[in-house]
Amino acid sequence: MAAAMGVRVREASPRGVVLEAPLEPNMNHRSTAFGGSVAALATLAGWALVHLGLAAEGVSAHTVIQQSSVRYDAPIHAEFRAVCGPVPEHQWARFIRAFRKRGRARVYVQASVEVGGERVASFEGAYVALPPQTPPGAA
Amino acid sequence: MAAAMGVRVREASPRGVVLEAPLEPNMNHRSTAFGGSVAALATLAGWALVHLGLAAEGVSAHTVIQQSSVRYDAPIHAEFRAVCGPVPEHQWARFIRAFRKRGRARVYVQASVEVGGERVASFEGAYVALPPQTPPGAA
Repeated sequence: MAAAMGVRVREASPRGVVLEAPLEPNMNHRSTAFGGSVAALATLAGWALVHLGLAAEGVSAHTVIQQSSVRYDAPIHAEFRAVCGPVPEHQWARFIRAFRKRGRARVYVQASVEVGGERVASFEGAYVALPPQTPPGAA
Repeated sequence: MAAAMGVRVREASPRGVVLEAPLEPNMNHRSTAFGGSVAALATLAGWALVHLGLAAEGVSAHTVIQQSSVRYDAPIHAEFRAVCGPVPEHQWARFIRAFRKRGRARVYVQASVEVGGERVASFEGAYVALPPQTPPGAA
């Protein structure tokens, strides 16, 4: 999917993730970006932020999305980016503590979708970290 | 995007839309469906329901998504479907009346994502109908 969308990684660290997608493979019949592509790019950016953050902590876990919401503010006429800053420090610390204690924890990630530095959509996702050995069917 | 996802239309009328996607092009690294693909399929199904409903009323409009949320209940290991029933009659009637009066109206659409008849995710989207001549930049 990411390949079909033409996703490029511009930044990827526990401090921030920026993913970029060209308009053309993600266009709807109005020649603007399809809402589903926008949601998908932000979902992936949020997932990457959590995944990289866990790895940086030396925590072995797998991460799944539990809930997400997107608000679409403006049509997208050009290449767009999903931009995730870091999770606020106290929330991240609580997430890691909870995972270490219970082997399962949830964290919320915000992302903005931008065109030329202007916000065109807002995303929030709840991601859950699970033990790495969890079979997918039990997640 | 829909082509890259392998989307097939199983049903498409103002009474209901069913879109199906195979697992393979929508798989994540865990061999389950990528959340972004799930959101995209449901976004498209909801959009199609509104679009077909407006056409059936003889209303000339274009439809954009304004807000959406997805709850992911279970990992997806197989072909999945986004299933939209009709919008409840009184809500639909209010939407059409509002559009005819003001040239702009919003309607909420629910969809479930299913595997073999079992719900694996829930979607709600708010779609806005705008005059057909609205340039994309003004939506």
